[in-house]
Amino acid sequence: MRLSQSFSKTTKTIPADEQATNAKLLIRAGFINKEMAGVYAYLPLGLRVIENIKTIVREEMNGLGASELLMSSLQPKETWEITGRWDDAVVDVWFKSKLKNGTDVGFGWSHEEALMVMISKFVKSYRDLPLSVYQFQTKLRNELRAKSGIMRGREFLMKDMYAFSRNQAELDEFYERSQQAYLRVYDRVGLGQDTFVTFASGGAFTQFSHEFQTVTASGEDKIYLDRAKRLAVNEEVYNDDVLKQLGLNKSDLEEVKSAEVGNIFNFGSAKGEQMDVYFTDEDGERKPVFLSSYGIGISRLMGVIAEHFNDERGLIWPEAIAPAKVYLIGIGGDKVAALGDELYNLLTGNGVAVIYDDRDVRPGEKFADADLMGIPWRIVINEETNTTGNYEVKGRTEKSPTFLNKQALIEKMSGAK
Amino acid sequence: MRLSQSFSKTTKTIPADEQATNAKLLIRAGFINKEMAGVYAYLPLGLRVIENIKTIVREEMNGLGASELLMSSLQPKETWEITGRWDDAVVDVWFKSKLKNGTDVGFGWSHEEALMVMISKFVKSYRDLPLSVYQFQTKLRNELRAKSGIMRGREFLMKDMYAFSRNQAELDEFYERSQQAYLRVYDRVGLGQDTFVTFASGGAFTQFSHEFQTVTASGEDKIYLDRAKRLAVNEEVYNDDVLKQLGLNKSDLEEVKSAEVGNIFNFGSAKGEQMDVYFTDEDGERKPVFLSSYGIGISRLMGVIAEHFNDERGLIWPEAIAPAKVYLIGIGGDKVAALGDELYNLLTGNGVAVIYDDRDVRPGEKFADADLMGIPWRIVINEETNTTGNYEVKGRTEKSPTFLNKQALIEKMSGAK
Repeated sequence: MRLSQSFSKTTKTIPADEQATNAKLLIRAGFINKEMAGVYAYLPLGLRVIENIKTIVREEMNGLGASELLMSSLQPKETWEITGRWDDAVVDVWFKSKLKNGTDVGFGWSHEEALMVMISKFVKSYRDLPLSVYQFQTKLRNELRAKSGIMRGREFLMKDMYAFSRNQAELDEFYERSQQAYLRVYDRVGLGQDTFVTFASGGAFTQFSHEFQTVTASGEDKIYLDRAKRLAVNEEVYNDDVLKQLGLNKSDLEEVKSAEVGNIFNFGSAKGEQMDVYFTDEDGERKPVFLSSYGIGISRLMGVIAEHFNDERGLIWPEAIAPAKVYLIGIGGDKVAALGDELYNLLTGNGVAVIYDDRDVRPGEKFADADLMGIPWRIVINEETNTTGNYEVKGRTEKSPTFLNKQALIEKMSGAK
Repeated sequence: MRLSQSFSKTTKTIPADEQATNAKLLIRAGFINKEMAGVYAYLPLGLRVIENIKTIVREEMNGLGASELLMSSLQPKETWEITGRWDDAVVDVWFKSKLKNGTDVGFGWSHEEALMVMISKFVKSYRDLPLSVYQFQTKLRNELRAKSGIMRGREFLMKDMYAFSRNQAELDEFYERSQQAYLRVYDRVGLGQDTFVTFASGGAFTQFSHEFQTVTASGEDKIYLDRAKRLAVNEEVYNDDVLKQLGLNKSDLEEVKSAEVGNIFNFGSAKGEQMDVYFTDEDGERKPVFLSSYGIGISRLMGVIAEHFNDERGLIWPEAIAPAKVYLIGIGGDKVAALGDELYNLLTGNGVAVIYDDRDVRPGEKFADADLMGIPWRIVINEETNTTGNYEVKGRTEKSPTFLNKQALIEKMSGAK
């Protein structure tokens, strides 16, 4: 994209009404726009990050054999009354409204109940199971407070996956494979080293659920981490009994701040029994469907990454999810325009996403914006490039640039990673 | 996808609570699921059609130089009060709710006002214009009735584009280019021949808006069509004055039923003036931003295509948007499984999307499902294929199959179109 023709604009003003680092940086860099408290629009650069994260998550979910679908935001009351979760005293984040004829409707904050009602139409026999489906869906949650930027908003994009199994063993097998897929997701988006499977309360259904927690200074959670074992427990279940059960020693645990980037939940047969979703097994016996659910807040994950990777100059996107790989700067106006255009076309022709800063502004402003936007590689073309044929290349976190000729530059940028 | 492992299931039962052909067919074929009146989930096959349509629309919008972004569903009251469109007496399709602190919020049924508020932060000078942005967004509309399946629902996917121009001439130039892009979209999704630019009322802002109407027996609209000129007028503006102005003769016009598949709207400077969105021009003068907006209901378009292309056996998807190109059937159980697996891998390896019906059901059921799902090509492998090396291939609308050897088959399926 040519910046001269693009929509996004950075700003030096730090938004006064934002507390969270992710919101401040993402607004300043022109990635998001605040629509109201806890509600953000994703501008072109921000949407690219979202789409890059979605692509990674989609590949990993497809790898589990799950099928993508899309449920509705509008939810009928009847579906949620079955489990008692329509009640605002039980679920306190509902947005609700009414159809013209007075019928109550809710706006989806989760979709377990909706999926269970739906699959009850499709699943009759053991031959129809196991099944797993997932969606990328805009969830609406009427949060009391909204001060964490895109890490916890009233409207956010979520990947939620639901697995329907015939028995606990089949559920457990999928649950285990999903944990591995989740770890691959965090690895691929750049958080792998700092993200840990964390034991959390399982609520009414099971002893434990599992969270994926990224250790980060600005995290809102606290976990107790055994780095060697790459396992943690959260505050809810941090007690002697649990530690013993998990084979963890208090003395090996670090107390660290962290941000939740995913959670997975094992309902066993409870939801199936509660919602009367049964199938007929090989012996003709009627059995409840086993449910497990698997969430990753996509926009939240983007927020955590923004919190985790930044410095005093701005964002620092991991390459796999950056809105572009290269930020191309021409210094010298018309004298370098042809060279800039040529390189822009060569790079994009080789499948490299480039932000081409062809604006008529001071070089300093271009350098500052390249850093603020956090684009992994900055390439500078100036009048010397005409003579030497060398292009200045600098990684976002590198102290000083290197110089490469055109051929070497194209190879470096279009090569693997 | 292997049907034995997939989620979707066809049903012979015609949904009793659906009147619209599109809903009946899409539910029977396992493409959508009714969540409540006017609200549908998109099952894996249905979502594939949606994504295929989105890809085509995205390419054409990018071709216009527009940038993709994503606005929010939650809308603050203040934004819409500026133009008076918060009022239920003015806009009767709002869903509304309240934050915990009592603040009113609406759910986006359109986004003109939201975009104008947003760009007022980014656009200050003539140098910042022209701009165009678009999104694929789930709109919520509290429709009184919902009897048209996915052609007019309470929740639907829309592509809405907004162009911000410096003057009427610049607006008109983009408007004209967009009309051509829209016609290319309808052409590419298979509706080109039957879709016509249609003059409609421009409301308070301009004399005309433009609709794109597809002539189809089940359409809810009526248009007056000059086939030779490929132009139509809708009922609102069908009068002698307008016909004269447009150079149309009553005697050349056919009255036909049609379905709206897009509309574009020219607000001129009215919205800018109303909402106080101004820029400074070359002469230092303060001028209102000119707005035009461009909508295509993506899920509606899928519904119109389902209405337009079907027969007594089921859906007939145009190849460009079909959920798969090939429906592969093996007859003969284990004896043909190896051959089926081989061809499945060969086709998918060549980039051909295949539904592989590897279920243990009667051949008749497989044939019926291939037709009901409307997949463009059906390939049958039976025991004879082992001997002859010939594969049976039949187009969805062809009367009888042809036989091709493996090489010819792969070439035909992976070739252009």
